[in-house]
Amino acid sequence: MPAPARPTLEAIAREASVSLSTVSKVLNGRPGVSSVTRRRVEELLHDSGYARRGVDAERGDAVELVIENLASEWSVEVIRGVERVTRENGLSMTLSTIGDYHAVGDHLITGVLRRKPIAIVLQFSNLTADHRRQLRTRNIPFVVVDPAGDPPPEVPAIGATNWAGGVTATRHLLALGHRRIAAIGGPEELMCSRARIAGYHSALQEAGIPVAPGAVRSAAFSRAAGEQEARRLLEAAERPTAIVCGNDMQALGVYDAAFALGLDVPRDLSVVGFDDAPSAAWARPPLTTIHQPLQKMAEEATKLALRLRAGEVDNTRLELATTLIERGSTAPPATPAAPTA
Amino acid sequence: MPAPARPTLEAIAREASVSLSTVSKVLNGRPGVSSVTRRRVEELLHDSGYARRGVDAERGDAVELVIENLASEWSVEVIRGVERVTRENGLSMTLSTIGDYHAVGDHLITGVLRRKPIAIVLQFSNLTADHRRQLRTRNIPFVVVDPAGDPPPEVPAIGATNWAGGVTATRHLLALGHRRIAAIGGPEELMCSRARIAGYHSALQEAGIPVAPGAVRSAAFSRAAGEQEARRLLEAAERPTAIVCGNDMQALGVYDAAFALGLDVPRDLSVVGFDDAPSAAWARPPLTTIHQPLQKMAEEATKLALRLRAGEVDNTRLELATTLIERGSTAPPATPAAPTA
Repeated sequence: MPAPARPTLEAIAREASVSLSTVSKVLNGRPGVSSVTRRRVEELLHDSGYARRGVDAERGDAVELVIENLASEWSVEVIRGVERVTRENGLSMTLSTIGDYHAVGDHLITGVLRRKPIAIVLQFSNLTADHRRQLRTRNIPFVVVDPAGDPPPEVPAIGATNWAGGVTATRHLLALGHRRIAAIGGPEELMCSRARIAGYHSALQEAGIPVAPGAVRSAAFSRAAGEQEARRLLEAAERPTAIVCGNDMQALGVYDAAFALGLDVPRDLSVVGFDDAPSAAWARPPLTTIHQPLQKMAEEATKLALRLRAGEVDNTRLELATTLIERGSTAPPATPAAPTA
Repeated sequence: MPAPARPTLEAIAREASVSLSTVSKVLNGRPGVSSVTRRRVEELLHDSGYARRGVDAERGDAVELVIENLASEWSVEVIRGVERVTRENGLSMTLSTIGDYHAVGDHLITGVLRRKPIAIVLQFSNLTADHRRQLRTRNIPFVVVDPAGDPPPEVPAIGATNWAGGVTATRHLLALGHRRIAAIGGPEELMCSRARIAGYHSALQEAGIPVAPGAVRSAAFSRAAGEQEARRLLEAAERPTAIVCGNDMQALGVYDAAFALGLDVPRDLSVVGFDDAPSAAWARPPLTTIHQPLQKMAEEATKLALRLRAGEVDNTRLELATTLIERGSTAPPATPAAPTA
């Protein structure tokens, strides 16, 4: 059965009653087209099933990494992962950030269409449906590295096992003999926060231990928020002997609260972080935490994007395993399993 | 006076007795030319004063950042700086690393010639004279971001005031009342290490305080090396009340040694780092250190590279100021200026 005839750019120009050069401008992100015309041409490109082929000769050899912002300690891990795979494949890597732009949108997309990368890796998941369509129309495969774990189902994404990480952190404390284990989770609107806290609940349930009222707090992913919630937990009558945190920064805030109250970590309080940020080893005591393999996730995202580009059918959703990194912030409780008023 | 006629590629091909296509391959870093021919053509390109013009149309819009390796905490600061300036100028940024290659050389240069960046920022200073020549022949300006402070005089470079940083760190301790101040410097073969230690000596000399024998050590820029040298200093009969370090990792090692010996920081020992690495604030106590403005240095390097590309005559050597960041690791000595055996 012959494939249906692929619409030509000429046909699209005729249909939109514009010149071929206007269609080409839209396709390549060049200026000089009104937004109304641009939208109309985009729609026709999409609806007609137009998808560019044979363009690799005119494309460069770059995979583009788009990062939400470079301020996070994490960004360098993602950069390392993408850089490694591009280098191993003899490709180059272009880096762009969304920067101060509120809308992800046109800035990013225009740049991408102009640069014509062979694939895109995104470190955030809030691409609009329009943008995804624009990339698909131009045959630019994209994959999201998504530690927050909530991109739309049709978006190829590499995540981490957040739920399993919550289970592992809590089981580690249970195995040390802790019974009064509190949790500080990240913002509730993030799926990664919910998954980690759900893992905490599952591990306690598995051990037959009820969660004390008020023992689960939700807070911003910051040191100050971690300190604030930890103070509430540690000043309560039935103070926990261990706290599972939503990320490493929160854990550092828990240290601050504990030290301010004259408590020693880990003698009086065990603390588990999440992420294994590069700085976790600088903390005193060095932080026991759940390692999220961000560099590896970025490597897998890049490989997946290159496979998608080669047209290889593939599983486009993957969660890499989180692992427990035992350092110095966890120990058996001073009086295991016995209440201390 | 008319400018002398610029040699054409045809003339160079004739001179080298090769085809024009061979000259073009050499110029653009494409394969298929013997190394002997390549060297001969490179020499002719250089000796004839050939320098490509009018090529911007065929170039992309990318500034290429070449980083020695991405493992350092510093790399992300350099990336941030280059990214910011390229974004503000509507340009893109390509990132490449020297990676596992021992020689900087042909891997890097071939890639650069193929990608044709409009300018290059390098995070290391050991480009060979050959490579610098290859870049100049192709009108690709390059600037080094160089915290180690020792590129050849003709290489455009942005550094930091290492000597002044050593002075500032030591003066800070003197102002707190310290008199027995030891120093752990970085590897002696690095100019930045020598400059910092020279600054330490100058500040002590200015204050009329002699340097005690054995009070200045040299060590690798690592936590373990810092701990080892600090142990030697702290186990001596006349133990210092303060230690100035060559970088933040060494300072963290000094913490390790002090705690192992039962000494409190800053009560029994003040510690000053150098760099202000992102993790310095995670240390307990938070580390007082000399801030090296690496992001700013990378910004200036990128701006300088773009000015060089525009043909603007400019000062091609610049040292940005280092500044003292006071945190929790320095305090007046327990018994100011009085010997404690």
